[in-house]
Amino acid sequence: MLLSKLFIPITKDLPSEAKIKSHQLMLQTGMIKQSSAGIYSWLPLGFKIMKKIEKIVREEQDNIGAQEILMPTIQSADIWKESGRYDDYGEEMLRISDRQNREMLYGPTNEEQITEIFRSSVKSYKLLPQILYHIQWKFRDELRPRFGVMRCREFFMKDAYSFDLNESEAVHSYNRMFYAYLKTFQKLGLKSIPMKADTGPIGGDLSHEFIILAETGESKIYADKRIFDVPIENYKNDMISLKKMRDDFSKFYAVTDDKFKQKDFNDNVKKSNQLQTKGIEVGHIFYFGDKYSKPMNCAVDGKDGKKTFVKMGSYGIGVSRLVAAIIEAKYVNKKMKWPKSVSPFDVVIIPSVTKDKKNLERGMKIYSELKKQGIDVLLDDVDENLANKFNKHDLLGIPFQIILGSKSEGNKIEFKEIDKESQLIEIKKIINTLKN
Amino acid sequence: MLLSKLFIPITKDLPSEAKIKSHQLMLQTGMIKQSSAGIYSWLPLGFKIMKKIEKIVREEQDNIGAQEILMPTIQSADIWKESGRYDDYGEEMLRISDRQNREMLYGPTNEEQITEIFRSSVKSYKLLPQILYHIQWKFRDELRPRFGVMRCREFFMKDAYSFDLNESEAVHSYNRMFYAYLKTFQKLGLKSIPMKADTGPIGGDLSHEFIILAETGESKIYADKRIFDVPIENYKNDMISLKKMRDDFSKFYAVTDDKFKQKDFNDNVKKSNQLQTKGIEVGHIFYFGDKYSKPMNCAVDGKDGKKTFVKMGSYGIGVSRLVAAIIEAKYVNKKMKWPKSVSPFDVVIIPSVTKDKKNLERGMKIYSELKKQGIDVLLDDVDENLANKFNKHDLLGIPFQIILGSKSEGNKIEFKEIDKESQLIEIKKIINTLKN
Repeated sequence: MLLSKLFIPITKDLPSEAKIKSHQLMLQTGMIKQSSAGIYSWLPLGFKIMKKIEKIVREEQDNIGAQEILMPTIQSADIWKESGRYDDYGEEMLRISDRQNREMLYGPTNEEQITEIFRSSVKSYKLLPQILYHIQWKFRDELRPRFGVMRCREFFMKDAYSFDLNESEAVHSYNRMFYAYLKTFQKLGLKSIPMKADTGPIGGDLSHEFIILAETGESKIYADKRIFDVPIENYKNDMISLKKMRDDFSKFYAVTDDKFKQKDFNDNVKKSNQLQTKGIEVGHIFYFGDKYSKPMNCAVDGKDGKKTFVKMGSYGIGVSRLVAAIIEAKYVNKKMKWPKSVSPFDVVIIPSVTKDKKNLERGMKIYSELKKQGIDVLLDDVDENLANKFNKHDLLGIPFQIILGSKSEGNKIEFKEIDKESQLIEIKKIINTLKN
Repeated sequence: MLLSKLFIPITKDLPSEAKIKSHQLMLQTGMIKQSSAGIYSWLPLGFKIMKKIEKIVREEQDNIGAQEILMPTIQSADIWKESGRYDDYGEEMLRISDRQNREMLYGPTNEEQITEIFRSSVKSYKLLPQILYHIQWKFRDELRPRFGVMRCREFFMKDAYSFDLNESEAVHSYNRMFYAYLKTFQKLGLKSIPMKADTGPIGGDLSHEFIILAETGESKIYADKRIFDVPIENYKNDMISLKKMRDDFSKFYAVTDDKFKQKDFNDNVKKSNQLQTKGIEVGHIFYFGDKYSKPMNCAVDGKDGKKTFVKMGSYGIGVSRLVAAIIEAKYVNKKMKWPKSVSPFDVVIIPSVTKDKKNLERGMKIYSELKKQGIDVLLDDVDENLANKFNKHDLLGIPFQIILGSKSEGNKIEFKEIDKESQLIEIKKIINTLKN
């Protein structure tokens, strides 16, 4: 893609309405555009990043055998009355009357809807265990939406729901999802900590939040830093291995400030292992047994022929929120660096264009060569000086740069990974680096 | 995937509420489930098909250089008041008040929203021509939603918008999209006819509907059958070639019944070329100049420095509707056959399981072998007799079947393409066929 043709309304000014760095960066680089309070359009750069995150989330759901479906955004109020949450949910639920005056709502979450689908589709234990997920737009009518897509009203989310015959199998489903979440955040290039959490309006007995580290995060975190050494690669998707994984994680102290006690921290974690930082919640998982299946009468015939209410859990990841969360984690010293797995482009070619067209022509040649190799490359063909270009690319955060200025000569091309020294190397070596 | 584990609530009964065959088939095979009037959940089988259609639609948009974005589902009423359509749109628009009593709505289309994005992002002609598209859920509050996802309220649609400096360039953008649509429907395995159409509530001067042939379609069609011989492959994405393409198509008579006159038909089309059939509208494209850009003040600086209102077009394809439309076109003589490009699986293995487990075990071996080859295979491991299985697979419509019954012996395996005679061939040949 040529930068001059990319629909990317970059602004040099710091947008005054943006209070946190992810919101600022997303507006400055034209990733999003506000359409009304807490509601955003995703422009090509932001859209591409969000889609890459979505793809990774999907892969890890598929890897544990979850099946993808898609529930609609607009729900009937009836099922929420069945579960008893219609009145509880308060003003954050966007309530709607259709032209026939039926009570509808824009789904803020989908426990009721999935329970309705399951009860009318499955009659026997034979289809259990089952995990269904979808990735869909949701709406929460926040009183004060702020911080860009971090706390907005219309947001994109993966939510999954597990169905089991009894509690021990349900806990295994919970552990499978726990494992999928660890793998997801790892693939996204993030350090995540699973933390025991309260269940809040979803309800239930067992819950974990997944928090990623970011110095500007909303929650204070106190943890034993050895939690990062738990070897995720070593576990397998079976009952025993995943139980061990949960046990291994629970050995290490990790709490947010609402549960923090200095004495506990000191007693449980020796000074040199104490980590105090901040983080952002990007995932939340719940086991709640028959909280929804019982009032909504979602039961299957068990092996003995007796009706049993299915045991359920629910599991969310904020996909649009992760775009902002990654920026909070990876935008350091006024330089953004997207993790390779979600970067909008693999590499950017930055030719100096002020004196003559030679560098631009050379850039076009390299561009074609990389394209042929299946590398997704951006060519900055905009007519501005190199200093301005570098400032812009500090924000765009494409992790690799090919710089065609005074240093690149003959076969040797200036190649730079953000955060590292630039090298003068041949195009073949650059291609090899980008392909790995 | 093992059929016994797939979340696919198959029902043998013909659902009484379903009046057309696509709606019946989609309910019978558990592709969708109604959640409220005109609102559906997509279960794994239907979801997979819809995603494959979406992918093809996206590829052909990308191929003509359109850039993907994503606009939100909930819009502010303000921009619709600017364009003057807020009052015009009537009760089909789902109007919403949020908790602050702001007037919002669930977008039925996006001309206003994209115009707002464009006017605040682009100031100069240099970024023109530009085509932006998105694939998003929309809502039209139909008084009588019916025919399943063919005429529902919440639906999934690709809409694109072109922006040009003058009319001749705008018509070229229109022609690019015309070309992309022909390629899209071709890849989907459908015969489509572009027909001159009225512009309706979108407005403008130039419009085509794309109709696919289906004997149960909603519109009567009268056409010169030579229109199918226009060689799409021969055109290129440049101004002259695409103008010729439009001219070539316009040589052939093709109208729906509202414009049909028997005399015109007879005068223009000789008897042997006359085609009278039915069809379903799956795409609609419009050129409407400055209909939105003028009232909404969307202008750019031209080459001469003068402000010019951009010339716009809009282009829709109903992605969720296409799932049903393909069924209407491809479900013939009580047998469904999905086009290979959108089939939920490449092939299904159907072992006879009544006598012993031998066929099932053999099926599992073939299943693993095909999986290794990257073939997406379904194994029907359900415990029921072969006749029932065949009835079921007549509905599921996976185009290729491997049948493990009395005919398959030794190295020779019964392999069948729906509509064709079955053959006894070796697994290697089967793999070759499936891979091409």
